[in-house]
Amino acid sequence: MRDVSIIGIGQTQVGEHWETSLRHLAYYALRDAMMDAGVERVDALVVGNMLSGEVSAQAHLGALIADFAGMRGVEAVKIEAACASGAAAVRQGILGVASGMQDIVAVIGVEKMTDDVGSKVTAGLASAADADYEAVHGISFVGLNALVMRRYMYEYELKHEDFAPFSVNAHANGARNPNAMFRRPITEKTFLNAGMVADPISLFDASPMCDGAAAVILCPTELAKQFSDKSVRIAASTIATDTLAIHDRKNPIWLQAAEDSARQAYKLSGYTPADIDFFELHDAFTIMSALSLEACGFAEPGQGTRLAKDGDITLSGKIPICTMGGLKSRGHPVGATGVYQIVETALQLRGEAGENQLPNARVGMAQNIGGSGATIVTHILTREN
Amino acid sequence: MRDVSIIGIGQTQVGEHWETSLRHLAYYALRDAMMDAGVERVDALVVGNMLSGEVSAQAHLGALIADFAGMRGVEAVKIEAACASGAAAVRQGILGVASGMQDIVAVIGVEKMTDDVGSKVTAGLASAADADYEAVHGISFVGLNALVMRRYMYEYELKHEDFAPFSVNAHANGARNPNAMFRRPITEKTFLNAGMVADPISLFDASPMCDGAAAVILCPTELAKQFSDKSVRIAASTIATDTLAIHDRKNPIWLQAAEDSARQAYKLSGYTPADIDFFELHDAFTIMSALSLEACGFAEPGQGTRLAKDGDITLSGKIPICTMGGLKSRGHPVGATGVYQIVETALQLRGEAGENQLPNARVGMAQNIGGSGATIVTHILTREN
Repeated sequence: MRDVSIIGIGQTQVGEHWETSLRHLAYYALRDAMMDAGVERVDALVVGNMLSGEVSAQAHLGALIADFAGMRGVEAVKIEAACASGAAAVRQGILGVASGMQDIVAVIGVEKMTDDVGSKVTAGLASAADADYEAVHGISFVGLNALVMRRYMYEYELKHEDFAPFSVNAHANGARNPNAMFRRPITEKTFLNAGMVADPISLFDASPMCDGAAAVILCPTELAKQFSDKSVRIAASTIATDTLAIHDRKNPIWLQAAEDSARQAYKLSGYTPADIDFFELHDAFTIMSALSLEACGFAEPGQGTRLAKDGDITLSGKIPICTMGGLKSRGHPVGATGVYQIVETALQLRGEAGENQLPNARVGMAQNIGGSGATIVTHILTREN
Repeated sequence: MRDVSIIGIGQTQVGEHWETSLRHLAYYALRDAMMDAGVERVDALVVGNMLSGEVSAQAHLGALIADFAGMRGVEAVKIEAACASGAAAVRQGILGVASGMQDIVAVIGVEKMTDDVGSKVTAGLASAADADYEAVHGISFVGLNALVMRRYMYEYELKHEDFAPFSVNAHANGARNPNAMFRRPITEKTFLNAGMVADPISLFDASPMCDGAAAVILCPTELAKQFSDKSVRIAASTIATDTLAIHDRKNPIWLQAAEDSARQAYKLSGYTPADIDFFELHDAFTIMSALSLEACGFAEPGQGTRLAKDGDITLSGKIPICTMGGLKSRGHPVGATGVYQIVETALQLRGEAGENQLPNARVGMAQNIGGSGATIVTHILTREN
């Protein structure tokens, strides 16, 4: 087993890229990551994507992107694990390098949701839920999260306004990220006045539909110095799963797979929650921020919003989250999101996070969630020097 | 890097499983493979599937199948590489075991095409082609293969009847495979009288739409003996890619990715075409059989049908192909096919191929093709003892 490091990162701005095709988006991110790493070829390409078949009538992205990026012939596959496709692809890339069968692997997360001209995206996203027992009843993904949020508010006697700090923090950080989709800070008042999407989820609880691509270049840690003096080491990479259907879980307001994959990541890396300097969590909805913080050991059950209210999740707080805007403000191009999180974690560890740079960021955690918590991928990254 | 072996295999019959859900099909194959291996748990699950999002409105198969098979929590992802999804999933499973991060990995290929009530399957299959430059014009996958076949017939001055031996051989072998979809032998006359699908492809040139699942259990070769006295070693596992669009290739009647992945597999294993005792090739259409034999070094360019006419591809020939019926007769549940091929290769090497058993089968090759040749996965397997 070889240790694996990240020697290059790349990303496109997240947004509505009407004029840019899926293959172009992927290429731009890959090109930037390869230039950053200083590599001209890779042994394999791993693509994370969820919806291209449903939305763009295009499967087979591995070969497509390999060819379009000028690497015709190279080994390439696509990984899908709903909204956790991006980080699951990073995990597969890590296995390839760790195996010794591949030295340089490029992982690309790409999603183009705005090609949709009807309800394909909403139907596609619902396919992350259980088709036979959830989606068949017509519930959308926002609807599912609304049910979870309502239950959580009931159990812990919370109000909608208690979730405002998550959204305010995300937009404050996103405003200073040149690659974010939404670059304007919001106030609590904006949050409270927002239109309802699916009660109690309002517009500022929910992440947007958008397009984007991000990429990382992986290589064995022992070779990383040859390519980069700012490489970032993968201290842990784990995936845990749970039932697709929320009603099948013992506790609908507890992310068991987040707890499982985080616990395993702590064990593999030797770190504890106290060692984590910042946490790129999966704030597809504000409720998910609270649940993630609790399942990963940063807050007691029911105390996630309290942590946010106390300011602990801001850049100067105890456990900064979504330091580049998170899914809410940077945007959530679903199959690409997990790779964006890894790229942003690397930016912080390399000291290249610009106005959002954390002082002394040495250990960062990124967590990518598929469905309503059925696939959860956790990565812990550390500075090499 | 650790060597990897197959310690368990399982498969469902291929057919129209109206009454069996996708998750049930996957579970049946997985259960049989785990019982065959004598394992009660695995470290990870890798699912090969192409169309579940488009046809069954169900993505996120990794977590779904893990839970349904009674392994809630276990690491699980889905791999997609069009019709090569199955073998690409096997490749990812091998990387996981070789890495040392996973010891026991289950790989499942599953596809349910008969859930379709309209043209979703045909549109879904077309998404393996280039959406912007091929499928946009309305061409189906049969249409694309028909163009290739027509060109091949023109270049080498062949007639439709020259392809009959591929179909006759596949159906002869499938008739004796209890898991095959079509279990009746055909004659050359049946082939010649079949209705046209897309000129020059007639019904007996083309593989059927169907449902099925197959699974293998992988572990490090050094541990294989603990589980099974009939394990099969992976001597090579390779993926090569090419352009999705056929018009972008230097030669539309040459499978460059088959040549590339086979050449690499020969190099890794130390075997040459002369060492291969049988070849489970990807006969989605009869033309693909000819092209595969040529690209992998079993026939000179243009001589694929000659090999077939001479009887060299039959069970008693020089290079038996599709020994359990191939895609034509066993069936082609697209994302599952690559795993079926590996299961059948293992059956031959284990001496469990029943009436189709080859004497002294020691080295078998399986090749799975995605799209019209844009992703090609080659595996070479050998008997351990």
